[in-house]
Amino acid sequence: MKIICLQENLKDNLIVLERICSKNQTLPILGNIILKTQQGSLQLFATDLEIGVEIHTPCKVEQEGEVVLPIKLLSAFIYHLPNIKISIQKKGNYVLITADDFTTKIPTISIDEFPLIPKIQKDVVVEIQPQPFQQGIIQVLNAVATSHTLNEISGIFLNIQPNTMKIVGTDSFRLSEKTVFQKNNYTTTTPQKLILPYKTAYELSKIINQTENVKIYIEKNQILLQLKNTQIISRLISGEYPNYEQIIPKTSKTKITILKNELISKLKLASLFSSKINDIRITTNTHKKELMVFAADQQKGEFQSTITTDMTGESCEATFNYKYLLDGLSNILDDVVLFELNGPTAPGIFKTKQGEYQYIIMPLKI
Amino acid sequence: MKIICLQENLKDNLIVLERICSKNQTLPILGNIILKTQQGSLQLFATDLEIGVEIHTPCKVEQEGEVVLPIKLLSAFIYHLPNIKISIQKKGNYVLITADDFTTKIPTISIDEFPLIPKIQKDVVVEIQPQPFQQGIIQVLNAVATSHTLNEISGIFLNIQPNTMKIVGTDSFRLSEKTVFQKNNYTTTTPQKLILPYKTAYELSKIINQTENVKIYIEKNQILLQLKNTQIISRLISGEYPNYEQIIPKTSKTKITILKNELISKLKLASLFSSKINDIRITTNTHKKELMVFAADQQKGEFQSTITTDMTGESCEATFNYKYLLDGLSNILDDVVLFELNGPTAPGIFKTKQGEYQYIIMPLKI
Repeated sequence: MKIICLQENLKDNLIVLERICSKNQTLPILGNIILKTQQGSLQLFATDLEIGVEIHTPCKVEQEGEVVLPIKLLSAFIYHLPNIKISIQKKGNYVLITADDFTTKIPTISIDEFPLIPKIQKDVVVEIQPQPFQQGIIQVLNAVATSHTLNEISGIFLNIQPNTMKIVGTDSFRLSEKTVFQKNNYTTTTPQKLILPYKTAYELSKIINQTENVKIYIEKNQILLQLKNTQIISRLISGEYPNYEQIIPKTSKTKITILKNELISKLKLASLFSSKINDIRITTNTHKKELMVFAADQQKGEFQSTITTDMTGESCEATFNYKYLLDGLSNILDDVVLFELNGPTAPGIFKTKQGEYQYIIMPLKI
Repeated sequence: MKIICLQENLKDNLIVLERICSKNQTLPILGNIILKTQQGSLQLFATDLEIGVEIHTPCKVEQEGEVVLPIKLLSAFIYHLPNIKISIQKKGNYVLITADDFTTKIPTISIDEFPLIPKIQKDVVVEIQPQPFQQGIIQVLNAVATSHTLNEISGIFLNIQPNTMKIVGTDSFRLSEKTVFQKNNYTTTTPQKLILPYKTAYELSKIINQTENVKIYIEKNQILLQLKNTQIISRLISGEYPNYEQIIPKTSKTKITILKNELISKLKLASLFSSKINDIRITTNTHKKELMVFAADQQKGEFQSTITTDMTGESCEATFNYKYLLDGLSNILDDVVLFELNGPTAPGIFKTKQGEYQYIIMPLKI
């Protein structure tokens, strides 16, 4: 193999692949990537066995072939170069990387040791606009149970129906749900329900480019997400996603309209005085139109703040984990948030005015 | 005690004091600071027993007094506030911090548990311009032996004589020396030699304000560094600083003039291929005016780069720890560096053209 390519065409792609490569001690080969010439371009491939990412990079192919190289070293090396033309060439059991003023040799290993790249039947199933898809994934990621024993909620749930697509994440303490309406946003040949592993969803949200649609091909246990120059192949999480819709309150006792940043600011101050279980008490007085944020700990002391804001319904009180409150608020892009309360034992809700996003959070039992 | 003060007048001062406070498990009181009214302003004080810092902050004093508060909580709390007027008031065994829209209570402890603040006789000894002093300290700090058994080199050496002041740091593998010339830069009543602990020097370099001279008062085992609103009291390191001047080569075999950033860039690339001892080989060919940077490791591979640059003297070769080379180069502000070599066993030197800074580095024995 021999190719000539620009440093800047390699750099960002190698950073993506470095995140994919696992620190798998029992299978150290996964700390490597494949570089392979293909139809006049360079194909880069990395996998951690759960997810595989293939990126096409423009280059000049002088001799077809393929090599396997350690991603960490390669990525750091290319990163530190200026944006110059570099030559990458296989020579026996090492790879020569050269430019005008340097020569580098990196040992390579046989491609036979590398796991096979899975293939998926390419019947287009779903095609999605990049912007709402990326934003939806980002808005639910922080609610996903990344260290949960229940396998089904360790990923994001995609429920793709003819009129709406729901993107959902939960860890059973809070639940984040984004609705993408069909019109101009996506097409689907058949309704689909699938659970995408957290890492796949996270990487997808990082890789999605604002100018290109995402095409999704689905098989029983795996999925192919096709972008312009990149494809992600991932296993799917098997099992049934919990029937979460039943826990979402249909009506609420107190409905508050509040400035997001004012609530965030007071929650952050209160959090400094919360006890070990991160508890913050929210109390409303709908008569006075006041929301009170309160936290106390025997050693740290206590904090109390009152926000005067628009609200309707009955006065009530509930205690929440402040981290979950802040996570929910951080997922909302608007300046104004609808905040609904249902007393000390039923869920609270953050909603956007448009209603396309909601975040359900269980109170702490004190 | 009751005072009214602006958030922004407290915020940065608390960040400084938080760094001073130690995480001393046996003396948890040192995780607190004193807030004390004094002549219409607020005096903040923190110590880790080695160094004590006192900062004066403008405020309106409504009632004289003093309180002791946990620095971590106080600093985080003030940091998260907007720039508003806040009231700080002692009430029995807690401190009330309030503004228009919040109330906070933080438990306080008795000031009697706090270590005494040492006093120093204020005969002015040295007065230094802030800019060269701060820059000099920063230029030698990374060579100081922070984890060395030799107590004498665990701080920076100040040798203040009538014509020049030398600021020096070493860990016995490399040595960094800054010369400040007397003219307009400092005054001293008597020559002084002292060793300032690393932490004191580091904090001083952070706190020095570009617009105010530093006044230094020296006693046998302690020093007072007086800035406009801040004073630092520190113990001095006892003992004799090594007679380092004898190890600095008087003449050198090869003298190279090189662009600093070009050398840094090649050293960073080579460092990826250095072995466990961080070795990089530097070879010069004065006939061809070439400097070669080379690193190799059996597993990683190898890197070689040639820089064509101005040089005189004989060709030679030496191997260095790349981290020490990069530290030295990072201390030099100029674009062009003088690099002198003396073969595989005698020190190499980085110098500025003006000669006010030099960095001596011992080769590795391979």
